[in-house]
Amino acid sequence: MPLKTRDEYIESLRKMKKKIYMFGELVENYVDHPIIRPSINACAMTYELSQQPEHEELLTTTSSLTGEKINRFTHLHQNTEDLLKKVKMQRLLGQKTGCCFQRCVGFDGFNAVDSVTYEMDADLGTEYNKRFRNYLKYVQENDLVVDGAMTDPKGNRKLAPAQQADPDMFVRIIERRDDGIVVRGSKVHQTGAINSHEVLVMPTQNMREEDKDYAVCFAMPADADGIIYIYGRQSCDTRKLELNEIDVGNAMFGGQEAVIIFDDLFVPWERVFMAGEYKYSGTLVERFAGYHRQSYGGCKSGVGDVLIGAAQAIARLQGLEGVTHIKDKIIEMIHLNETIYSCGIACSAEGKPTTSGTYLIDLMLANICKLNVTRNPYEISRLAQDIAGGILVTLPSEKDFNSTEVGHFLEKYLKGSADFSTEDRCRIQRLIENLTLGTGAVGYLTESMHGAGSPQAQKIMIGRLANLNYKEEMAKELAGVKQKQDVKSKK
Amino acid sequence: MPLKTRDEYIESLRKMKKKIYMFGELVENYVDHPIIRPSINACAMTYELSQQPEHEELLTTTSSLTGEKINRFTHLHQNTEDLLKKVKMQRLLGQKTGCCFQRCVGFDGFNAVDSVTYEMDADLGTEYNKRFRNYLKYVQENDLVVDGAMTDPKGNRKLAPAQQADPDMFVRIIERRDDGIVVRGSKVHQTGAINSHEVLVMPTQNMREEDKDYAVCFAMPADADGIIYIYGRQSCDTRKLELNEIDVGNAMFGGQEAVIIFDDLFVPWERVFMAGEYKYSGTLVERFAGYHRQSYGGCKSGVGDVLIGAAQAIARLQGLEGVTHIKDKIIEMIHLNETIYSCGIACSAEGKPTTSGTYLIDLMLANICKLNVTRNPYEISRLAQDIAGGILVTLPSEKDFNSTEVGHFLEKYLKGSADFSTEDRCRIQRLIENLTLGTGAVGYLTESMHGAGSPQAQKIMIGRLANLNYKEEMAKELAGVKQKQDVKSKK
Amino acid sequence: MPLKTRDEYIESLRKMKKKIYMFGELVENYVDHPIIRPSINACAMTYELSQQPEHEELLTTTSSLTGEKINRFTHLHQNTEDLLKKVKMQRLLGQKTGCCFQRCVGFDGFNAVDSVTYEMDADLGTEYNKRFRNYLKYVQENDLVVDGAMTDPKGNRKLAPAQQADPDMFVRIIERRDDGIVVRGSKVHQTGAINSHEVLVMPTQNMREEDKDYAVCFAMPADADGIIYIYGRQSCDTRKLELNEIDVGNAMFGGQEAVIIFDDLFVPWERVFMAGEYKYSGTLVERFAGYHRQSYGGCKSGVGDVLIGAAQAIARLQGLEGVTHIKDKIIEMIHLNETIYSCGIACSAEGKPTTSGTYLIDLMLANICKLNVTRNPYEISRLAQDIAGGILVTLPSEKDFNSTEVGHFLEKYLKGSADFSTEDRCRIQRLIENLTLGTGAVGYLTESMHGAGSPQAQKIMIGRLANLNYKEEMAKELAGVKQKQDVKSKK
Amino acid sequence: MPLKTRDEYIESLRKMKKKIYMFGELVENYVDHPIIRPSINACAMTYELSQQPEHEELLTTTSSLTGEKINRFTHLHQNTEDLLKKVKMQRLLGQKTGCCFQRCVGFDGFNAVDSVTYEMDADLGTEYNKRFRNYLKYVQENDLVVDGAMTDPKGNRKLAPAQQADPDMFVRIIERRDDGIVVRGSKVHQTGAINSHEVLVMPTQNMREEDKDYAVCFAMPADADGIIYIYGRQSCDTRKLELNEIDVGNAMFGGQEAVIIFDDLFVPWERVFMAGEYKYSGTLVERFAGYHRQSYGGCKSGVGDVLIGAAQAIARLQGLEGVTHIKDKIIEMIHLNETIYSCGIACSAEGKPTTSGTYLIDLMLANICKLNVTRNPYEISRLAQDIAGGILVTLPSEKDFNSTEVGHFLEKYLKGSADFSTEDRCRIQRLIENLTLGTGAVGYLTESMHGAGSPQAQKIMIGRLANLNYKEEMAKELAGVKQKQDVKSKK
Repeated sequence: MPLKTRDEYIESLRKMKKKIYMFGELVENYVDHPIIRPSINACAMTYELSQQPEHEELLTTTSSLTGEKINRFTHLHQNTEDLLKKVKMQRLLGQKTGCCFQRCVGFDGFNAVDSVTYEMDADLGTEYNKRFRNYLKYVQENDLVVDGAMTDPKGNRKLAPAQQADPDMFVRIIERRDDGIVVRGSKVHQTGAINSHEVLVMPTQNMREEDKDYAVCFAMPADADGIIYIYGRQSCDTRKLELNEIDVGNAMFGGQEAVIIFDDLFVPWERVFMAGEYKYSGTLVERFAGYHRQSYGGCKSGVGDVLIGAAQAIARLQGLEGVTHIKDKIIEMIHLNETIYSCGIACSAEGKPTTSGTYLIDLMLANICKLNVTRNPYEISRLAQDIAGGILVTLPSEKDFNSTEVGHFLEKYLKGSADFSTEDRCRIQRLIENLTLGTGAVGYLTESMHGAGSPQAQKIMIGRLANLNYKEEMAKELAGVKQKQDVKSKK
Repeated sequence: MPLKTRDEYIESLRKMKKKIYMFGELVENYVDHPIIRPSINACAMTYELSQQPEHEELLTTTSSLTGEKINRFTHLHQNTEDLLKKVKMQRLLGQKTGCCFQRCVGFDGFNAVDSVTYEMDADLGTEYNKRFRNYLKYVQENDLVVDGAMTDPKGNRKLAPAQQADPDMFVRIIERRDDGIVVRGSKVHQTGAINSHEVLVMPTQNMREEDKDYAVCFAMPADADGIIYIYGRQSCDTRKLELNEIDVGNAMFGGQEAVIIFDDLFVPWERVFMAGEYKYSGTLVERFAGYHRQSYGGCKSGVGDVLIGAAQAIARLQGLEGVTHIKDKIIEMIHLNETIYSCGIACSAEGKPTTSGTYLIDLMLANICKLNVTRNPYEISRLAQDIAGGILVTLPSEKDFNSTEVGHFLEKYLKGSADFSTEDRCRIQRLIENLTLGTGAVGYLTESMHGAGSPQAQKIMIGRLANLNYKEEMAKELAGVKQKQDVKSKK
Repeated sequence: MPLKTRDEYIESLRKMKKKIYMFGELVENYVDHPIIRPSINACAMTYELSQQPEHEELLTTTSSLTGEKINRFTHLHQNTEDLLKKVKMQRLLGQKTGCCFQRCVGFDGFNAVDSVTYEMDADLGTEYNKRFRNYLKYVQENDLVVDGAMTDPKGNRKLAPAQQADPDMFVRIIERRDDGIVVRGSKVHQTGAINSHEVLVMPTQNMREEDKDYAVCFAMPADADGIIYIYGRQSCDTRKLELNEIDVGNAMFGGQEAVIIFDDLFVPWERVFMAGEYKYSGTLVERFAGYHRQSYGGCKSGVGDVLIGAAQAIARLQGLEGVTHIKDKIIEMIHLNETIYSCGIACSAEGKPTTSGTYLIDLMLANICKLNVTRNPYEISRLAQDIAGGILVTLPSEKDFNSTEVGHFLEKYLKGSADFSTEDRCRIQRLIENLTLGTGAVGYLTESMHGAGSPQAQKIMIGRLANLNYKEEMAKELAGVKQKQDVKSKK
Repeated sequence: MPLKTRDEYIESLRKMKKKIYMFGELVENYVDHPIIRPSINACAMTYELSQQPEHEELLTTTSSLTGEKINRFTHLHQNTEDLLKKVKMQRLLGQKTGCCFQRCVGFDGFNAVDSVTYEMDADLGTEYNKRFRNYLKYVQENDLVVDGAMTDPKGNRKLAPAQQADPDMFVRIIERRDDGIVVRGSKVHQTGAINSHEVLVMPTQNMREEDKDYAVCFAMPADADGIIYIYGRQSCDTRKLELNEIDVGNAMFGGQEAVIIFDDLFVPWERVFMAGEYKYSGTLVERFAGYHRQSYGGCKSGVGDVLIGAAQAIARLQGLEGVTHIKDKIIEMIHLNETIYSCGIACSAEGKPTTSGTYLIDLMLANICKLNVTRNPYEISRLAQDIAGGILVTLPSEKDFNSTEVGHFLEKYLKGSADFSTEDRCRIQRLIENLTLGTGAVGYLTESMHGAGSPQAQKIMIGRLANLNYKEEMAKELAGVKQKQDVKSKK
């Protein structure tokens, strides 16, 4: 059975020789680095839960390619049930980790690449889908984490790839050889890149003929020569170096994002899934983005559950549980959170098969989902800060609490309700700080805004998918515009 | 085949002798009354579409009771597909009528009464469900419209039924006889009451033992002796009397609400489905409200489509189509509208069977749906008024346009884009007025607020269903509250 | 003393022979017309309060032109105190009438025309300001209502006046004669036009050289030959014809808007204040709009007070006074209402003198004020409907309450709290209906959106007035952009 | 002249021997501590600008006590002009520092204590005001920073001070001696405490008779024996220790909050301004809170200006300046920011004298101001993150940019528009990170929520000050409730 355990996953990472820079230095042992480890822990939860009987139904499934039991994160969706279970699995993982667990980008990449390469092969007589499915079997059999790498640096955003002053601002093929291609460029905001076994590179936008060298899709081992990672900073990242468990807020788990550099990377043909077929790049982006916008309906509502739970806990710890205005705010938080989830469920329930058989979510509703995700977590977060009180941002450090000179003062004066310990109050405050200002906020807020495309991208898609002409005709019909006689005759 | 045509429906209403008062007078021919007729037209659309092949799949289905093809509005949901089709059917009807089509309350009543009476029979050895299913067969075979009547006047809202100064402020059994019961009281806000063949009365809230005479559920023909209707006024209702088609905005369709008086009505036992079993009243209300909160995800998004289409049309007619800020507002309208729809879809996709086999929506998500419905249509409406321009509320009457003295001035000066007629501009403006201020606004706004329960009712349910303890535990787990050792051992 | 009484004002209107059309017919006695009269009553309140000692300070002042005591509505602001009192007077009148009292447009026109003509004279050696001040003395001495007429029909909004297919889509000079000018065109959305003694016409936008015939400003008696009025419809307007006081909601007062046609109107030179000086049209529009955007901070918060009061009253009448969620909504309504008022006060307190000595509000803050007015009343209105309950839109007519057959049923069943009469409940419900859906909503909602310019107009002004470069420099300074050395040296 | 320079201020701090703990250790040289120094720099700006001729009018004034030129932060407001200038001075300082500059709490404390002690003396024959004014003269003459200390830990929030399990949860008098009093307790969230020369302690809420030992107000030197400070952590606080100027975002300035412990502090009578007169504690809190809620209309709009400027700068640096949706978001940010400012101006313009002659802001409008401050900065912040793009939270560290191995990659790939440097882009991104997630967000967001009282406190005040009965009467008058005859007779 291809399912890895949590420990097997972590050990498999240890064997990889990745070139990772952080704070200007090469990281030696990235698996045990205190800043990186929580993000590995989060991703490892996708393995851990797959071994637990109570979560088996969500975390595992039967491969459509091999018939074997696999981790759902490596699956091609075969029906709307699969799409629905994906969202539920993501919500569960958001609840268990309180952060981004990073394995969805590859998952969403698989499903997008599968249907698009299938259509390419049908149209062009290529063998991309065959190659890709072979590759995916390998991923399934080895239960791998794959970084789905889409976002290019883009340089001047008003210019197309080929128009940029620096031609490398989008990943491109700089050489086509008999045995493969050589690519150069960078992918930014790469969630979970460091924790991945593989990287699946996709183009970032619709390309025109003159951009065809930028229409490139391929997969490579994450520690291949020519791949360099530079770790992104997060708010409060170095608290993890302080060895103060409480001050970190969520000591066990966290997100991760990196810049990837492709320093003239060689890719053999069997790992290439698009190489110049620019007409398909737009559809690939649209589908990947669609799946990923669905994803946020799950994972962000899971993290939202944690923040709602923390708000409820702090209200209790501070003696305000059950006070009407607090209850009202918590209900509003739930409402906003379940609205996100509803959109994730809806675009899944309304999914339809592509020609490859792989199911695609309803694109309109997936974009609606994501646009709500760019708003609701911010308001949930604001309400959590309202409930937490000012101590959220004025609490002294854990070391002060441990101080023999002043620790007893803090213990005495910062106690909330007499029924609970001052330490527990601090722990929950720090978790709320983590999720609304710290490393957790990076994922829960800013990534909710920009991950899977910034809100303007969703608005453009919504405008495009809305069939406004049809709506306009309905209105005209009812208003009797140019059809007065017909309307009357109906009476 | 039990499916009635539009005309058969209307003719069947003509045969009923209902006692209806409007403006202080008994209405003689209610079917052709200009204020009432548009609401009959709207309800008739549920028949008309059931005959059209392209809408057959949504509007009709196979009865779980008789195996015959029936109108979906008389169906007991057998699976999530049924729940999903219900929402889609409602959106379609909202689009076709631009208003409330009034047949959902009975439909939602059937499904709620079925599962609750089934549970009563299982617990108590009664035969309510058998009676009810016999009744429902009759409804299906005759393709009837049934008014689901729940809301009592309630008097002083802080007092329970038995505590009220006037004991009739909730419908109650005033006499139990061998052959049946006698009931007294009133139901208010009765959507579609006048257009119905039958009225299905349900209790309006959870009852206590001392309120048991108020725990009453039954069905009676809508023109039974002892039933009196008083028609509710709507904003701009009398424009329909002016015989100005344009000024009405939506000349063909409209909503309808009435006060029903039960003036010591006799109900035979075979039509009684609850008579004192107060412990079941709360569940019945909760389920009926749940189904009806789901309904709004469909019908209100359908009406929203019409308003969005009208906004797009008026932008075009006034030469502002494609202007960025207009497009942005229309996309926001779509976003808000599809958010409602997503919640309707989500609570349906997550539906589960009750013990009777009838499917129930996910109650949490149905409440989320409705709470969004109490907000989003108001903002959609505000944006529509923004796009429409001030002429929306300063436009002279159709008669002024037809005046030989000043009609030509209006024709000349109130022309928008030269490509379109002034009349068409007026028609669309009047439709927007109808939906945001007039008879349509009654249904699209205020009914969205209070129909299926006011927002506070949804908030209470959301708070109750949220499983806050579970969320709190997740937060504590991540924060290391009282479980510090365990958390550390996981590393 | 030039102050007219309420009755003198109404009698003075009777003497005017205006050509007014409504429902396609010439209106004979407009002063007593049941649809028009409430709007006259509202405007008359500006006279009535000026006679009351307790309101004298706000409603009257000393003329800067004549030294006499005048009605403030005819005054040129001499200091920020005047600007502040204007807003307070408007709030008071909004409270007293619950609607638009229509006298501000002329008032705002006076102040805008005064400073702009003063600057024209200084630049061009013209005598427009002298003419205008003579005219204003006449207005002050006779305590006149003047319609400030700005908005042209505009036709295709993407085209300038001279580019329109029909050259009359903006008011223009069609002939210049020795004794005056002849103008043709129309002004739409003319608030209070019918109640006015005079009409003060101003250009509606910035004009270019080729549009100079459209750069025209003048004043004429409202019943001059060549002026025709066509009355605009409002939601629920004809309820006033039903002679049901209760159903009207606000039986005494209402707003009014009309289309004015200038059918080749002759204007003598002494009444002309701009005739081709296109470069000044933009400033005139900007200042008039600025004053009028300030106005809304007063009048709309006054109407908001009425709606808040009605919400509080209905809560009490229905037994829900003091319930937490009701209180919370009422406080939110107050918050939104006082925010509007604060902006009105702020732009007044920050007013500055123009070269003519007449004080101008702070334009940025006046635009902020108005942009809040395009939003907050809608939310206040939504909250009022939430508190009112569904009966707001299902209440039968007053005639049903008076019916011998069914009146007693309504009296019995529609009683709220036993401490209050059913009639009082109906009255307050009808007032809320009036303000959120009926004639009152026209002024409180849609006019709040579009009066004094649609929200996009405010956004453009805000963007223009914001001094973004200065803000950008502050940010760069703090971020150390290109000034790293300087920043460091400051330490 | 009593005005200190920036350097004199900093030197004066060096002379004070304060007992400050941070990270569990006593801080030796707090003035040069890298985490503390930016907050001293921010406070020092109140001195620096007072020396600059262009800011003299706002930063300085003439003392009402001594007739000398003083720093405005030590002034008693003598008229509405003073109140208005206060807000403008605060906006200026917010712009110059991009953070909380910490000198307002004392300033607001002076004005509140002055009028309340004046009223106490008048009622009770005490000499508190005389003592206080003597003290304030000393403050003015030495141009001191005074920490206005109000917020107690409060323990279980449902219990009054005397009911708490631990009687020290509110600062209290534990001993009354001939020469003074001894106090024990703590004040939390003490903004600027470390930078202050003095601490002015005030009670935190309305007290009852049994709480009279808690009704205590006094001032003491900030380094008196018995005062201990424990420094509060902020998001990203330790970045200041990294010596990476860029990563800090706002390297020069920052806020500061501390827990103060009064470890049985002796206070001589001449420094005591309330000692048991519990009836005055509520008014003192209400006025202090009112002044401080006004303050936020100034300082937070100043910081808002910086964030708006940063958003505009980053749009330009990334090539998106002038793109419509970006412009629209920036205008919305300005709108929200100026709304806050308008409320600050409005409550100042509407200020009135107290019996002491010291002017008090309009309490209702000051509360409206603050309630907007608990919302608008969060939305401004969300919009800033929208404009910034995902790089805001994925940007590698400054050290990576300086690395010889990978610095050139980052320089190349993270360039935005070719017209600007990559470094400048990073600097602005880090400033936005600072203000929306980092140390700046502590002040701009969470402090905006809870400083000067949490939103629920404002809601309670708004409900109390609203005169709902008057509004209700207006509504009843218009609706004809119980006054039908009167209304009719007015026609």
